[in-house]
Amino acid sequence: MWVRKLSRKLIVLKLGGSVVTRKEKPFTANLPAIRRLAKEISDAKLSQLMIVHGGGSFGHPLAKQYAIKEGYRGDPTQLFGFSKTRQAMMTLNKLVVDALIQRNISVVAVSPSSFIVTKSGRIATMTDEPLKKLLQTGFVPVLYGDAVLDFDLGFTILSGDQLAAYLAVQFSAEQIVMGIDVDGVFTADPRVEESASLIRHCTLQELKKMHTRIVDTSSTDVTGGMLGKLIELTPAIEKGISAFIVNASKPKNVYKALRGESVTGTLIQKT
Amino acid sequence: MWVRKLSRKLIVLKLGGSVVTRKEKPFTANLPAIRRLAKEISDAKLSQLMIVHGGGSFGHPLAKQYAIKEGYRGDPTQLFGFSKTRQAMMTLNKLVVDALIQRNISVVAVSPSSFIVTKSGRIATMTDEPLKKLLQTGFVPVLYGDAVLDFDLGFTILSGDQLAAYLAVQFSAEQIVMGIDVDGVFTADPRVEESASLIRHCTLQELKKMHTRIVDTSSTDVTGGMLGKLIELTPAIEKGISAFIVNASKPKNVYKALRGESVTGTLIQKT
Repeated sequence: MWVRKLSRKLIVLKLGGSVVTRKEKPFTANLPAIRRLAKEISDAKLSQLMIVHGGGSFGHPLAKQYAIKEGYRGDPTQLFGFSKTRQAMMTLNKLVVDALIQRNISVVAVSPSSFIVTKSGRIATMTDEPLKKLLQTGFVPVLYGDAVLDFDLGFTILSGDQLAAYLAVQFSAEQIVMGIDVDGVFTADPRVEESASLIRHCTLQELKKMHTRIVDTSSTDVTGGMLGKLIELTPAIEKGISAFIVNASKPKNVYKALRGESVTGTLIQKT
Repeated sequence: MWVRKLSRKLIVLKLGGSVVTRKEKPFTANLPAIRRLAKEISDAKLSQLMIVHGGGSFGHPLAKQYAIKEGYRGDPTQLFGFSKTRQAMMTLNKLVVDALIQRNISVVAVSPSSFIVTKSGRIATMTDEPLKKLLQTGFVPVLYGDAVLDFDLGFTILSGDQLAAYLAVQFSAEQIVMGIDVDGVFTADPRVEESASLIRHCTLQELKKMHTRIVDTSSTDVTGGMLGKLIELTPAIEKGISAFIVNASKPKNVYKALRGESVTGTLIQKT
């Protein structure tokens, strides 16, 4: 149980694709979860917030079918697959943003592929003016894992995890709240081993030692499960931004995490 | 009647809000027109194409209600109005892009507010890397008039006309095809004066002389009617990019204009 003082500094909230969609059903949003989370975010009343959501069953099946992450191999059907993948993400994003607008939050959808180009899968160029102005003016930007252009690969997939960590660094966030579909990082798979226990707090050094032992309890996807998430978070944590991994599928957890109230999860700090 | 050779150079196609929506019915897309235009664009098979559409009955009623164009006056309901205006534009854009995907065009929606910030209503900063890469890779970017952040005003409305002309200059287009809901520029209002005649061809100098005489036959909106369109087009025409104004509400006109085939309309060239 960890308590953070409610601050005016930026919080980046990542909502996993497995939370906002039904991962096993292609192109199916988890609307009850989206609406509940919209209410929790509204109730938390944060002054500086940025939201990034994953692709789940909207982005991943198409990305996989057309091998978008692997890059453009000169096959025109892949171009069309990129178009469809992007549009599927726009469809999911619209559902998320609509739910947030329903809760009277002044959100603005921001399309990663419209302002970011990657290089071998890593964010290479990004204009930060629109996002900076949005935050300054009092908006809540809503971004997502996206199919993006890539200097080396032609195109690829930019995961919501990489994006969330990058934005947290770029805009000097205080914390990244990672809302996933399990309670946090475990010492072993709790579905298999009874002795498995939740890691409630760890430092970056402890985390790095654990890398080999971390069990992937989160649903795997093209952007790489729990270990992938931790690796993506590392540069942000190194900059002093804490990461708090909570189960966003359980009601009130995201609300409490945003408010800095006591909640079950894994907190990772630099030291 | 004017014929352009089909070229491999970029064409920027602007589709007016009065063409893709039913202007008199709030939040009502003109789906038959959108689908017809998607087929015409698909049939035209251009290798370098960028599409910009207007807001029509999606963007304008909200933009007007919350005085978005005039800028942020510190009223939080305006922030929420900005969110709703942007989301309405996303909704219309999704309908347009979905129709283009239905026709197997490798389109990619690009959100102006995600990569452009204006200054007193004029485009001030814009990253061109994603658009450049999209065009190079063979995609058809689809943009739209949007609610954007503004360095002086807080936020404002960026018209699809300004955007289309700016992109045409930025990416060295050969021509801007302006698809509107009348046949072109008239010497007088053809609905009132029998003597009114369509101007089929004019130079920039001739156009400037006519400014005071040009009658606004197009439906007026927050972004400023026919005269506004011509003023926005002027910087592009000065750079040698021709502007061809055609009636996109009439079948086959956009197809013919894109193909460089003979079609009724107003062609404006530098000299």
